[in-house]
Amino acid sequence: MLPFRSNIAAMAGYVPGYQPPDVASWIKLNTNENPYPPSPEVVKAILAELGDDGALLRTYPSASSQVLRETVGELFGFDPAWVIMANGSDEVLNNLIRAFAGEGEEVGYVHPSYSYYATLAEIQGARVRTFGLTDDLRIAGFPGRYEGRLFFLTTPNSPLGFAFPLAYVEELATRCTGVLVVDEAYADFADGDALDLVRRHENVVVTRTLSKSYSLAGMRLGFAVARPAVIAALDKIRDHYNLDRLAQAACVASLRDRAYFAGCTRLIRETREWFSAELRALGYGVIPSQGNFVFAAPPDRNGKRVYDGLYARKILVRHFSDPLLAHGMRISIGTWEEMEATLAALKEIG
Amino acid sequence: MLPFRSNIAAMAGYVPGYQPPDVASWIKLNTNENPYPPSPEVVKAILAELGDDGALLRTYPSASSQVLRETVGELFGFDPAWVIMANGSDEVLNNLIRAFAGEGEEVGYVHPSYSYYATLAEIQGARVRTFGLTDDLRIAGFPGRYEGRLFFLTTPNSPLGFAFPLAYVEELATRCTGVLVVDEAYADFADGDALDLVRRHENVVVTRTLSKSYSLAGMRLGFAVARPAVIAALDKIRDHYNLDRLAQAACVASLRDRAYFAGCTRLIRETREWFSAELRALGYGVIPSQGNFVFAAPPDRNGKRVYDGLYARKILVRHFSDPLLAHGMRISIGTWEEMEATLAALKEIG
Repeated sequence: MLPFRSNIAAMAGYVPGYQPPDVASWIKLNTNENPYPPSPEVVKAILAELGDDGALLRTYPSASSQVLRETVGELFGFDPAWVIMANGSDEVLNNLIRAFAGEGEEVGYVHPSYSYYATLAEIQGARVRTFGLTDDLRIAGFPGRYEGRLFFLTTPNSPLGFAFPLAYVEELATRCTGVLVVDEAYADFADGDALDLVRRHENVVVTRTLSKSYSLAGMRLGFAVARPAVIAALDKIRDHYNLDRLAQAACVASLRDRAYFAGCTRLIRETREWFSAELRALGYGVIPSQGNFVFAAPPDRNGKRVYDGLYARKILVRHFSDPLLAHGMRISIGTWEEMEATLAALKEIG
Repeated sequence: MLPFRSNIAAMAGYVPGYQPPDVASWIKLNTNENPYPPSPEVVKAILAELGDDGALLRTYPSASSQVLRETVGELFGFDPAWVIMANGSDEVLNNLIRAFAGEGEEVGYVHPSYSYYATLAEIQGARVRTFGLTDDLRIAGFPGRYEGRLFFLTTPNSPLGFAFPLAYVEELATRCTGVLVVDEAYADFADGDALDLVRRHENVVVTRTLSKSYSLAGMRLGFAVARPAVIAALDKIRDHYNLDRLAQAACVASLRDRAYFAGCTRLIRETREWFSAELRALGYGVIPSQGNFVFAAPPDRNGKRVYDGLYARKILVRHFSDPLLAHGMRISIGTWEEMEATLAALKEIG
């Protein structure tokens, strides 16, 4: 009998969104991927790193990802010592727990949001505490002084799509005695962000991903902005070569092409607003979204029925069996044409 | 004051081998990189995945890396359920500790070998116990029944280059009540390996990397072979998208090109044998090596003096200040021409 840790033996493991094997025959709106390819500069940068014979691949990548940190720092007005790069923002979420929460210590988050926080806490053997939402989309029962080691706040929230107001996020920072992690995976599609709180509060960490707004889900790139003391701790925990050479090349090229990024995110926001209005015209309840997806509930509040109808038409959206979410679906914003096809299917399904 | 875990606050962090910024002007023999480019099939596979516009990069990679597991399984005669892929074998070493050793629990390894095991244990808050080597290269004072949760055995050993005999490794497996991790980062350059022990002992895990023998240090690829129960636990712990799309493409192409792999590893072994003989002719003490490097000590047993002499000539090898190792240097096996230049420099240095 192998001596597995009891928390590992007991846990179920995280199940990511379904990726159909015959992906090309689907309209795939279930994992908040970007419908557009990455910046053409990404392909150029990868080809340059690859060279004729891939000879650079035989050597280790930059351990520090320093050029990437400088690029992020310049973009958002931070010294590179305030930035860490990660193999997807999931890596940095994982390492934040390892930096701050030992076995049995508390980690908090909002339910519904990103359930992977709970998985990461389980792996660590930390305790999980969840808080619900009030009807006006604030955190229910959040203490005046929250003493958990970390609190994860997804804003814009997934799967619901709304963003917490900045003043409220700042108030939460002052109420947390531990670290407030503001998970901004979707902030590039929103009207604002919380980066400025990192300057004002030593306990605020902002995490970002290039998976959605930079169309690089396939390359696993994310980063965090935090005080240098936090970054230094995360640097001790991360794998010393956490980003491969081609991912590093893709990251810099992608971040630097601001025009492409602006065009792409604007288009997705416009599609989102139009699609949301069309859904409402069909009688759907739609929470105003700040992400690249909408949470929408049909008039009969039977999300599974409509999910199944879409599935039968090879349109894949996300349905959650959780009682708080089962009445609706999370629908990623694809191309205009994909959303037109989805609306036509929804009319058919009724 | 931020509530860092005390183990994280106290630890120093791992420092990987030096990567000179002006790398092209050096003969770089300090991090056991392969001097030859990866298989031409790797470049082709990356270009195919990239396509004209990188459109596939917008979508998440395979979460399971199933094709990679099948390829490894086929290559070594294991069912894919016995295989897990990792972002460098470092990832799987990390996750093995997370699977088996909680805070305060013991992890053992041989000193000298790969000091990153200690870093990974510190991150976890596990206790570290090191064992020295006897004069005949066995583990000094290893208990009849070792009750640490994990024992890491690097074979071939780095930096010393020797391999433990298979019968001895098997004996260690029977003496460990926890898991014996056989770290075979260098096994592709050796006369044998321990994969068969995975079939015979439920507590044996073998880890491999594509960094050295497949010339893919820049792509961060590794794997482990173990019983399905161990693999299932590691699957719960790893990031669900741990390998990006281009790394997955590179991995499969590289593993499948057996002719290239065989030619490349044979050439490095031949260069190693010739270089070792030449060093001995210069009066150096050289441990017979099974890796893609040699540990060599000059006649005056002043490793630092010779390291400095090589450094001044833009030849970078690895010197360790540890008293057990300071008398020598670890020299990676480069091309024949690079080793000729190194020998000429050593003659000059005297």
